[in-house]
Amino acid sequence: MSLTSASPLEAAQSAKSASHVLATLSADARNDALTAIHSGLTAARDDILAANARDLELARKAAADGQLSQSLVSRLDLNKPGKWEDMLKGILDVRGLEDPVGRVTLRTQLDEGLSLERVTCPIGVLLIIFEARPEVIANIAALAIKSGNAAILKGGKESTESFVAISRVISSALESTQVPNGAVQLVTTRDVIPQLLALDKYVDLVIPRGGNELVRYIKDNTKIPVLGHADGLCSIYLDSSADQALAEKVIVDSKTNYVAACNALETLLVQESALSALPGIATALAAKGVELRCDPATKAALADTPGLNIVDATEEDFNTEFLSLTLAIKVVSGLSEAITHINSHGSHHTDVILSSKKEDAETFMNAIDSAGVYHNASTRFADGMRYGFGTEVGISTNKIHSRGPVGLEGLMIYKYKIRGGGQGAGDYGEGKRQYLHQKLPLE
Amino acid sequence: MSLTSASPLEAAQSAKSASHVLATLSADARNDALTAIHSGLTAARDDILAANARDLELARKAAADGQLSQSLVSRLDLNKPGKWEDMLKGILDVRGLEDPVGRVTLRTQLDEGLSLERVTCPIGVLLIIFEARPEVIANIAALAIKSGNAAILKGGKESTESFVAISRVISSALESTQVPNGAVQLVTTRDVIPQLLALDKYVDLVIPRGGNELVRYIKDNTKIPVLGHADGLCSIYLDSSADQALAEKVIVDSKTNYVAACNALETLLVQESALSALPGIATALAAKGVELRCDPATKAALADTPGLNIVDATEEDFNTEFLSLTLAIKVVSGLSEAITHINSHGSHHTDVILSSKKEDAETFMNAIDSAGVYHNASTRFADGMRYGFGTEVGISTNKIHSRGPVGLEGLMIYKYKIRGGGQGAGDYGEGKRQYLHQKLPLE
Repeated sequence: MSLTSASPLEAAQSAKSASHVLATLSADARNDALTAIHSGLTAARDDILAANARDLELARKAAADGQLSQSLVSRLDLNKPGKWEDMLKGILDVRGLEDPVGRVTLRTQLDEGLSLERVTCPIGVLLIIFEARPEVIANIAALAIKSGNAAILKGGKESTESFVAISRVISSALESTQVPNGAVQLVTTRDVIPQLLALDKYVDLVIPRGGNELVRYIKDNTKIPVLGHADGLCSIYLDSSADQALAEKVIVDSKTNYVAACNALETLLVQESALSALPGIATALAAKGVELRCDPATKAALADTPGLNIVDATEEDFNTEFLSLTLAIKVVSGLSEAITHINSHGSHHTDVILSSKKEDAETFMNAIDSAGVYHNASTRFADGMRYGFGTEVGISTNKIHSRGPVGLEGLMIYKYKIRGGGQGAGDYGEGKRQYLHQKLPLE
Repeated sequence: MSLTSASPLEAAQSAKSASHVLATLSADARNDALTAIHSGLTAARDDILAANARDLELARKAAADGQLSQSLVSRLDLNKPGKWEDMLKGILDVRGLEDPVGRVTLRTQLDEGLSLERVTCPIGVLLIIFEARPEVIANIAALAIKSGNAAILKGGKESTESFVAISRVISSALESTQVPNGAVQLVTTRDVIPQLLALDKYVDLVIPRGGNELVRYIKDNTKIPVLGHADGLCSIYLDSSADQALAEKVIVDSKTNYVAACNALETLLVQESALSALPGIATALAAKGVELRCDPATKAALADTPGLNIVDATEEDFNTEFLSLTLAIKVVSGLSEAITHINSHGSHHTDVILSSKKEDAETFMNAIDSAGVYHNASTRFADGMRYGFGTEVGISTNKIHSRGPVGLEGLMIYKYKIRGGGQGAGDYGEGKRQYLHQKLPLE
């Protein structure tokens, strides 16, 4: 890893060159680099934690002055129980994943002695822009190297000392490996994000790891494809056929398991004929401290239920990702209205139907235009670890390339290889040779 | 298909709604729509050709006044031998392709009674901007419907009468089918391209079908992902181990089989020790009328060869897509220099190594950062029909989603479906239930 005082342009150019080398390295060479990083970080624990302590001290002062939130200070702290160990384990976990490079995904005999193969390969240069959590840098470096991509990293300024310390270690660890120095670059100069976002000639994909505002700013200010999501407005549609206990449990888990997550529930749509189930659900939510923003019909259905915190919903509540103990609730006539509401108000992240009618569930899952569509399960399952991907680059609401939780596969593209014996396109056609187009097994 | 005098915004909104219906239709329903379009066009042949004749008349006048190129006039003509029949056959060919919707590409048992599936689904709304060839509209409508995507079409003004006539037929043909009217929209109002390109809330993917300038303009003026390529600067590296006759044949085919194509050869890199093979190759190229733009070393190697048209190459020639009978030629020391040259001067479209050394060929194919990397075969094979994809939406040099010739698969994304029995994320973790993450067969 380079610790550049280099300009963003120089960093990007050198990352591009390095990406061409990195793309040709064997899986062993890439895994060896992860081993070296793991050993280096293990040995440098004290130095890194000391650097992190300096970041923390500044951050605590800023928090005391009201310039930083306490939750950001908490995210900075590498010394929290388990955090350091998780960071190191994460590197070995990534190393242990199946090699995503060089998988043959299509093989066709075009003619005798002329074969076509589609083979996975790295995308090239990733630009990763992230906020405060210093352990992200090790995770991202591991993912980039494992997938054969070069990476330019730009972290939040609150973690600068930690980033620099970790980068130094990674950089010197890589020196003993085949991974070129420019393959992972930390840009530490300030206010370079607009410059980095303009480097579409060198950067192939931007991955923002941070809050909505960061993601939205990046999406609005670059021509480079962005992998991620700005909003996570997840909805549940409660059908009258749903089991009451099941519905209560899934709704409570979706809303309260971790309210600040993008896959937390924000809007509950209740079928008119299911309004009688609402008091029990509302009581369970109230027990967890959830405020209910109700439309007139759902408010009326809860009129006789004690102990609730009900607020009249505004139209805006049904377009809002609360990220807090707040839930918007609205009545719908049935499946079709629920589908229309979710497709137009949701953020195409993850949406759920609670119903005992399988056919309705399938209709819902086919018609809802979201990355995740679930039947009788919590929105909170939208997560790369829970999906079994081993790691997660982020969750995408994009409609091309990668959608939903994105693992290593999302950092890959492919190329077509043809192996021939001197054929020209002019050899084929009417009265000439004909293509075989015979599908071959992928081995 | 709607023939909108509607605003671009209205067209996009109604396409989005239609896309949600279209995404839920069965393969039969989508295929039936293609049958209806085919029958409708067959029956309306005379009307459409009459409309096309009116376009042609205007275009011929404009050409006579020097305002339009003769080649554009020729592309307009639907009455050229075989063109009408090809257009109709194209619709049935698309109908006959395997259904790309609803393919299960991953299936995991997360836990007993909790399953995860990744299923292909349409992207949503495509914006297709194309130039003069009127038959493209039928082809694109067929591809969109087959893949379950809604499409907004904006054609070049020279074909307006033909487009409107074809659209009317498609529109009335669709009335008898389950495909909603808004699913395919022709926007005929003028100068709406900037407005359409701003509709990133409704349009998921832009597909430009036209020349470099159109593509570059679109890429520079929208936040919507663009599928395509602006440049096709293809190169061949000639290694000294290559068979002389094979090299001559592949180079001549790559350069001269169809010079205006994006997959035509533009730069030839000759290994220093292969310069002795150059006179034969240059003579074969000269016989086809190719002008050679040579660097000093390759010019010197051709000093004693009669009958050549040699021009001193400038640096710019090695960054130029000539699209004509012109070839830039340059000496390189060997494989490594060739790789560096192509990765930095090429357009990442399709590049070739001519060599009898298999290992070098594999190195080249792994190291070159292009959509197509070939050994001993012509650049001209970069084509969806030749790859056996049945149809082609375009050729992409993008580094995400789709790369190389793009068939129906490139118009698909996927969604994750979870089918559960009331599970919450809070049920899993230390001391609680554990995920199985058991891979299941895809059927």
